Formats: sequence, structure tokens, C-alpha cells
Amino acid sequence: MALLVTGTIGIDTIHTPAAQATEVLGGSCTYFAAAASFFGPVRMVAAVGDDFPAAHKATLARFPNIDTAGLEVRKGSKTFRWGGKYLNNMNSRETLFTELGVLGEASPTVPEAFKNSNYIFLANMHPGAQAGLLAQCAKPKLSVADTMDLWINIARPDLESLLGKVDGLVLNHDEAELFTGKTNTVTAGRHILNHGPRFVVIKKGEHGALLIHRDGYAALPAYPTENVVDPTGAGDSFAGGLMAALSRMNPEDPGSFSSIRKAMAYGTVIASFNIEEFSLSRFSRLTYREVEQRFDEYCEMTRI
Amino acid sequence: MALLVTGTIGIDTIHTPAAQATEVLGGSCTYFAAAASFFGPVRMVAAVGDDFPAAHKATLARFPNIDTAGLEVRKGSKTFRWGGKYLNNMNSRETLFTELGVLGEASPTVPEAFKNSNYIFLANMHPGAQAGLLAQCAKPKLSVADTMDLWINIARPDLESLLGKVDGLVLNHDEAELFTGKTNTVTAGRHILNHGPRFVVIKKGEHGALLIHRDGYAALPAYPTENVVDPTGAGDSFAGGLMAALSRMNPEDPGSFSSIRKAMAYGTVIASFNIEEFSLSRFSRLTYREVEQRFDEYCEMTRI
Repeated sequence: MALLVTGTIGIDTIHTPAAQATEVLGGSCTYFAAAASFFGPVRMVAAVGDDFPAAHKATLARFPNIDTAGLEVRKGSKTFRWGGKYLNNMNSRETLFTELGVLGEASPTVPEAFKNSNYIFLANMHPGAQAGLLAQCAKPKLSVADTMDLWINIARPDLESLLGKVDGLVLNHDEAELFTGKTNTVTAGRHILNHGPRFVVIKKGEHGALLIHRDGYAALPAYPTENVVDPTGAGDSFAGGLMAALSRMNPEDPGSFSSIRKAMAYGTVIASFNIEEFSLSRFSRLTYREVEQRFDEYCEMTRI
Repeated sequence: MALLVTGTIGIDTIHTPAAQATEVLGGSCTYFAAAASFFGPVRMVAAVGDDFPAAHKATLARFPNIDTAGLEVRKGSKTFRWGGKYLNNMNSRETLFTELGVLGEASPTVPEAFKNSNYIFLANMHPGAQAGLLAQCAKPKLSVADTMDLWINIARPDLESLLGKVDGLVLNHDEAELFTGKTNTVTAGRHILNHGPRFVVIKKGEHGALLIHRDGYAALPAYPTENVVDPTGAGDSFAGGLMAALSRMNPEDPGSFSSIRKAMAYGTVIASFNIEEFSLSRFSRLTYREVEQRFDEYCEMTRI
């Protein structure tokens, strides 16, 4: 069933303790779509400026399952740019610069042919824009949003309104704490459900993710790995794997506890590849056979 | 098969953001033994002073599976006392005071009747003392040690020597980082294996635990719970459940990857009860039926 993602396409400059990457392809929509593409087709709705490098366009084209018909290239606009630096343990990072570019302009438009998408993921952007994009689509089977500390701080009413319209929310544990004022992750998750969604997935980076669902809780560890080159995009890749696995399974009730729990495992595994290299480098040469192998390995690692 | 634990019995004063407990029963040996007792008999080797309150002795006696024949009450000595304060998120704590008492004296002696124990757990104490206690036992089927930052800092050679004598090590993730200088938990675990043990279990508190074993890795989340009153003793309870589940299963090779992985799940579940109240309060009225129920629930929460 058709999966659509809206979010950012960016040009990232990233410093890690061991290496750095300059002006590489990034953005929530990018990582989500690339990760999702291993499980099935994914429709991308996003905007870039006319400075978007041909090499980055070519990188996206290397993923045949990504439909870029919803990618707007705006004349006279600048592509979103972000610079970040990871601290020694790779778990915390600081933003070095942000150049909004097209992100400061009107949201992209959902193409007519995309409006029938059954699975919608609203990657991190202003919650008002997320709601606007969701409203452009016919009633999907499942809609899930991501968010970040910035919107919790400056656009809380919009975020709360959005939560009444989506089936699920995906966010980081510190964002869940910021939004709810609750330090206990389960409590924070339960409070978020009070705003409307049926489930919330709380991402904890190297510590895995927690599912707080109206019908139960699930906890999944991250894939234990030493090979962490760049954590950028791990959360978006996780969401991409989660949503794409769901759309491929296409169960009667895709928002059910057991559906989300299983899909989270695919999200975990696909995210573990992304962090092995900068940008989409690892995804560019990843095979589905490798994904399946690591999925089996992950099941073995977490089996009781 | 017979399980023996050596460690501390202490009198704890604990401050949490919500409540406090004064002069309650604590210590690594106490929590370990109480947790282990739900799965089978456990032999305790530890020392207290003659100031050890009768009420605390009575609390221990409420656990019929704990054999206290190795509990030395030393005339003229003081019981170990510890005061600690948990910060707002319950994940970090500071020590308010430490009164070593008997811990500054000679180690306790392993009673003759205990020397044939097959499963040995050396709870946190000076690694030289741990080695001395291990040497008092005949060759066990499985020996596992815990340690802490203090010994890593002031008794590293003793700790390294101990690691050549035990089958496994259990420690916190920040201690693993301190010991190895490696921020990646898997890398830190692998480095510890270079010192001799066949496996290391790295505890991550609310984020679960990681098994780094010569034959593979496993990752288990903590039991997701909102009911955290006092985390003191969670790690010792985890180890108690782990070792006691192993000794009950008593497989041909108790140090094998699959044995440890399964036993860790029991450790996780029993530890989740301990943190629901101060000291041994929750364990004192816990039934094995409740343990089994939560174990099933935990399996359901972590199933893919």
C-alpha cells in the first residue's frame, strides 16, 4: 500500500570525533525515504532550492523505490542547510548552524497522484505545516508524525492540535520529557496519548525504543553495534523502516499494538545500517539480503 | 544446584525526590539473596557488626530460601552504613556518606558446608577480597563478579587479576567505560573479555542490559514501568535473579550464551519489583506467581 513521507531534504555538514562530512545529502525526508525503500515504494513530498546539487539528485535516483514526483525544486530559493557536531560519546550533538532556505517558505504541495496514499509519515517540521500536508491527503489508513524540541517550545498549540489528527507520534525521549514534564519515559508516553494519538514511539538512540500504545507497552533495544560513524538520520531511518514494514504487511489494523511492535524491529535494523557511514553512503550499497540477515541476527539477540 | 553470594549487608539511608528511608536494610548481598530466593536456595556469606538491628535480621529470616549460616556478626564491630540521594530523573545518585565498619576489616569466611557451591556470585567489594573468597570454594560450575568505579580507580591490578579467575563480570555501563576507556558499550564489553572472562553483562539501568559473550551479543530492555520508588539494589537484584535462574536451570554449560541470555530476562523481571518500594519491602510480600506473570508480560513486551 502506498506510503508517503513529507519532511526536509537538506545539505548537512557533520563533525564527529573521528571524521567529518561537508555538504552531504541529509534531511528527515531523505533518510526516511531511503530506509523505507528497502521494504517497498515510498512517495516523497519535499522542497529544495535551485542550488540543490545534481550529485545529490543522482544519489536519490539510485533508490528506484523512491518516487520523487513530489520533490519541488524552487527557483531562486536555497536548500535547507544544517551543521552539527557530535560530542565524544556520539549520543549528544550540538547544532553549529541552520540555514532554513525553503523551509522558511510555503510548504510543498502533495501531488494529485499522491493524495490516495494509505500510510502517511509527517517527518519533523512545523506542526502547522504537518497538519496542512495531512489535510491534503484523503483519509489514510495510518498517519504518524515526528516532532522536535523547537516546536514543543514555540508551537505547542499547533502540536497539540496535530496530535488530535494523527494515529501515532514518534519522538526522542528528551522531547517526550520536554513536552510532558515527566521524567519517567512510560509516564511521558501515557501523557502524550491523552492528547489523542493511539500510540507513541519514544526513541532512545543507542538504548532502543519504547512503544506506549493504548493496548500495551513494548520495549526494543537498539541493535548492539560498534560501528557508529554518524548517528545523523538514525531516527528518521528507524521511522522509515517502521512505516514501510507496516505498509508492506498492510494488516487490517496497521495501528494495532502487535503491528507496530513488529514494524519497530524492522525500523531498528535498518537504522543500524544508516549510522555505519555518513549520509546515504551505507544505504547506497545496502542489499535487502543484508537487511534480512541482520533482522534474523537481531531477533536472535533479543530472544529470551 | 547450590548458589552462593558474598557481598555487603548494609544499613542504608536513602533520599529520593519523592520520599526518604532511614536506616533500612540494604547491601549488595541482601538484595542479591532476596531476589535469588524466589528461584531457589541461596547461601549468603557476609559480615555485620553487633549493632545490626534485630528487625533487619527478622526481615532476612522472612526469606526461607536464604541460608544465613555464613552471616558473621562481629562483636565490637559496626555494620556498613551508606547514605545516598537520587537526583530528579532517578538515574543518577550521589553518595552522602559511607561508614565502612566491618568492610574495613578482614573478609568473612566461607563456611565448610558452603564450599561445594556450584554457582558463585562475588558481589561488589574489593577485588582482592573477592579473589580470596573465590579461592575458599572448590571449583564452581560458574563464578561471576560485580565491581564498581572505586575499585577500577584504586585497585585495577587486583581487578584485572580477578578477571582471569571468573567466568563472567557484571557491571554498569559507566563503569565499563571507566575500566576500558571506550565509550561504545559493545567495544567496552569486548575489551573486558580480553582480560579473561567468557562474558560480561553491562547494566544500563532503565535502558536494560547488554550481554557481550565470546559466542555472541544479546540486548534486553528493562521492564517498562512507571512505578520507580527507589532504584537502590536494582543491579544486585538483577544479578540475583540471573544467577538463581541459572542455578535452577543448571544446564550442562551454565556460562553458554543462550543460558545467560535467558537468565538475564529473569534478572530483569525480579529487579523491576525491587525498585517499586524501599529496601526489601516489595520482595517481602512478593509471590512467585507474580514473578511468573510479569515474566510472561515481559516476554510479550519484547517479542518481535
